[in-house]
Amino acid sequence: MSEQAGPLVIIGGHEDKEGDRAILRAVAEAVAGRRLVLATIASRRPEGYLDAYRTAFEGLGIGELVELYLDSREDAYAEETLALLDDAGGVFFSGGDQLRITSQIGDTPVEARVREVRERGGVIAGTSAGASAMSDTMLVRGAGTESHRLGDLRMAPGLAFLTGITVDQHFAERGRIGRLLGAVAQNPRVLGVGIDEDTAIVVRGDRFEVLGSGGVYVVDGSGVTRSNIAESKPETTLSISDVRLHLLSAGDAFRMSERRPESAC
Amino acid sequence: MSEQAGPLVIIGGHEDKEGDRAILRAVAEAVAGRRLVLATIASRRPEGYLDAYRTAFEGLGIGELVELYLDSREDAYAEETLALLDDAGGVFFSGGDQLRITSQIGDTPVEARVREVRERGGVIAGTSAGASAMSDTMLVRGAGTESHRLGDLRMAPGLAFLTGITVDQHFAERGRIGRLLGAVAQNPRVLGVGIDEDTAIVVRGDRFEVLGSGGVYVVDGSGVTRSNIAESKPETTLSISDVRLHLLSAGDAFRMSERRPESAC
Repeated sequence: MSEQAGPLVIIGGHEDKEGDRAILRAVAEAVAGRRLVLATIASRRPEGYLDAYRTAFEGLGIGELVELYLDSREDAYAEETLALLDDAGGVFFSGGDQLRITSQIGDTPVEARVREVRERGGVIAGTSAGASAMSDTMLVRGAGTESHRLGDLRMAPGLAFLTGITVDQHFAERGRIGRLLGAVAQNPRVLGVGIDEDTAIVVRGDRFEVLGSGGVYVVDGSGVTRSNIAESKPETTLSISDVRLHLLSAGDAFRMSERRPESAC
Repeated sequence: MSEQAGPLVIIGGHEDKEGDRAILRAVAEAVAGRRLVLATIASRRPEGYLDAYRTAFEGLGIGELVELYLDSREDAYAEETLALLDDAGGVFFSGGDQLRITSQIGDTPVEARVREVRERGGVIAGTSAGASAMSDTMLVRGAGTESHRLGDLRMAPGLAFLTGITVDQHFAERGRIGRLLGAVAQNPRVLGVGIDEDTAIVVRGDRFEVLGSGGVYVVDGSGVTRSNIAESKPETTLSISDVRLHLLSAGDAFRMSERRPESAC
């Protein structure tokens, strides 16, 4: 990662688009008047997204807002698609299905160009599915608002803008602590980060800051003494001991390599 | 507490009433053929509860099932009400509103008789609101499935069959990790125990065991390094660092005084 690499803005979904717009404002500030590319790839029906975000970003000082949509993976090789990313100051991945993002652009020139945008100092933002896709291993499926069963969880390789972290979104709203614990139990190397709606983490280097109205749950499994995750029965309910949990809100910061909230370091 | 004191069976709501009935079976075993008193006090409309539980307990070997309902607090002094508890082998508190339980029987002869049932070796069970009422300080209100705000939480003095612990129910189903963290943040002396639906803890002395299909979340705040719970603004989102979290499932056991899962001690 180059020294001038831009920030990641990873949003738990339903970011405020009408009021204070703290999260979109942070994205716009990082775009700094340049072009912002709205990547609606995650959605099967992206109609209306561009208009909605044009309105949402109004007055926040971005340059033009253009849409990047792919009808198929082949489009990820088309020169006119790639041209959208030239000189862009940022890319914003909207919601839908995270597997649509990775299956369409993973290992294509589009993905390479998105990385170049970041290397040049541009911002990469993602909300909902767009947030999940940021991880190196992303959560694809797993029950919310019920007990977490060992067999429920599905994970898949993500875009890996962020490594060693698994992001989950709509976190409190969809009761996802169980599935994030399941992801961490599979490999405590991974730090679990659950982001509420209208809440974001802004990642710069090894540090992230929390922005927006909700909470960010950090699940650290490095001290786990025992779990039943490797048991064979998929219907067994997860059991895991000695997880360290932090709940962060606006203004809080976290050092990822140290796995410590800053104020509590 | 006498040596022969009976167990507590604290249920997260919606215990299985038709299949294996693991939780009701455990209650019935402790009742051991004696009378079971179904206390429907928590409900404003208890019609149908008695029939439903008669069917649910069928074939599990309890003696007669009788209903204890109070139209007013005065009824908690009536001899015919108290007579229901004589020689009872257990009391089962059904769901509704936990404040109805404590406001109607708190510090009355009914409450004293319920304690006597337990002292004699009888079982005290509670589901949903009946589970919450077991704590010395019970959770009464607090947002589920959204970010936990400092001002959301309401707590009240419970029946205190269990001390030093706050129980929350319908836990995964209603996304209640945030509000339980809030309760623990208020005073980390309290161990937070969140019980999923169709899941119970069976408390005997200092130890509890998990029963049923879901999970039990234990939130231990004794190592907390920092929280914003004492801030003045009620709309502020909770922030708390270094919570220890255990997720337990059927067969797991926990030592309350040591705050340790048994298998991980």
